[in-house]
Amino acid sequence: MILNYDANGLIPAVLQDNETGEVLMVAWMNAQSLNLTRETGEAHFWSRSRKQLWRKGDTSGNIMHVIKILVDCDADTLLLQVSPAGPACHTGKKTCFYGKLD
Amino acid sequence: MILNYDANGLIPAVLQDNETGEVLMVAWMNAQSLNLTRETGEAHFWSRSRKQLWRKGDTSGNIMHVIKILVDCDADTLLLQVSPAGPACHTGKKTCFYGKLD
Repeated sequence: MILNYDANGLIPAVLQDNETGEVLMVAWMNAQSLNLTRETGEAHFWSRSRKQLWRKGDTSGNIMHVIKILVDCDADTLLLQVSPAGPACHTGKKTCFYGKLD
Repeated sequence: MILNYDANGLIPAVLQDNETGEVLMVAWMNAQSLNLTRETGEAHFWSRSRKQLWRKGDTSGNIMHVIKILVDCDADTLLLQVSPAGPACHTGKKTCFYGKLD
């Protein structure tokens, strides 16, 4: 499967709780972080703000254990079904999607 | 709520089935498509390939009725919880995420 990385070599990844179906966060991967994710079974990303590789949970301990990686029909987005060791959000909430528009 | 659109004026939107929790697709919105989505209650996107506004289901009839719009902690991704009138994927599958990596 050839993935369609964007012009910056990145692909968005949606993280979904494997048990509850809750959408936890969206982050970006480059080829290296995807390789590390597949090798370790733990979600790794590319931080666009810090411009560095990022193992989710490295400081918080809230590792995202990857159960399954799915890819969409045009191969430009990933869906990671995960078993989270703790909250996905840096605010301590389980999901980053806690804000309602309006 | 001020949204963090990217350098192209776009923000990614994850569509999730409001009843089953299934992640259906990811597409991109600009401010105009978001406004139309909120005004009509039907998901509208910006097609990056066709460079035009796109009402999901316009040709297929598979409108995505929006139940709730959530925004993530750094306001750069939307989560639309929807009631789909039909399959989200142009292949006729319910979700675009039917491919398994490997």
